[in-house]
Amino acid sequence: MITFDEFKKIELKVGKILQAEPVEGSEKLLKLEVDFAEDKPRTVVSGIAGHVDLENFVGSKKIFVTNLEPRPILGIESQAMILAGKDGQGLALVETTRDLPVGTLLS
Amino acid sequence: MITFDEFKKIELKVGKILQAEPVEGSEKLLKLEVDFAEDKPRTVVSGIAGHVDLENFVGSKKIFVTNLEPRPILGIESQAMILAGKDGQGLALVETTRDLPVGTLLS
Repeated sequence: MITFDEFKKIELKVGKILQAEPVEGSEKLLKLEVDFAEDKPRTVVSGIAGHVDLENFVGSKKIFVTNLEPRPILGIESQAMILAGKDGQGLALVETTRDLPVGTLLS
Repeated sequence: MITFDEFKKIELKVGKILQAEPVEGSEKLLKLEVDFAEDKPRTVVSGIAGHVDLENFVGSKKIFVTNLEPRPILGIESQAMILAGKDGQGLALVETTRDLPVGTLLS
């Protein structure tokens, strides 16, 4: 169990995927540029290659955890984490039931 | 900023809405019965009345925070919290891009 204050520490935000490209040297990783309505887009490295159709993915909005400590993945600093769930068929991502503005905080 | 361990404390799960009905004495609250693939469904009280079309909402799967301390709302114990985002038009809920089994944990 967690308290509501512990939950409120986590920032879940709507981000719009501006770019997505394979990370050299990895079959699993994509390097994304994601707009959160901040000064500039963030770079996000995510193990979702093969789970998304790039053509539809780029330009779409998904939910990200935006206040995790940045961490290097294959030498690239990842500045957020895309939220996902997994079943036997692979990963599914997370989105809102209606289009919300980039940067909208979930709670 | 939070650590990955702090993030991992939060349980975000896919729940299927089995029932939804107005809470007597409130125009905002709905009382939901939600399946998380546990022994029995949980009761969730949520301020989403007027933001969902009950006919489509019941039977759908949405994302919930499932390990918050239960709290009484108008005398009913709410045992999870539905995740939502808000803009000028009201609330939007959160779902996965592909159907995932009830109880699936997001990360």
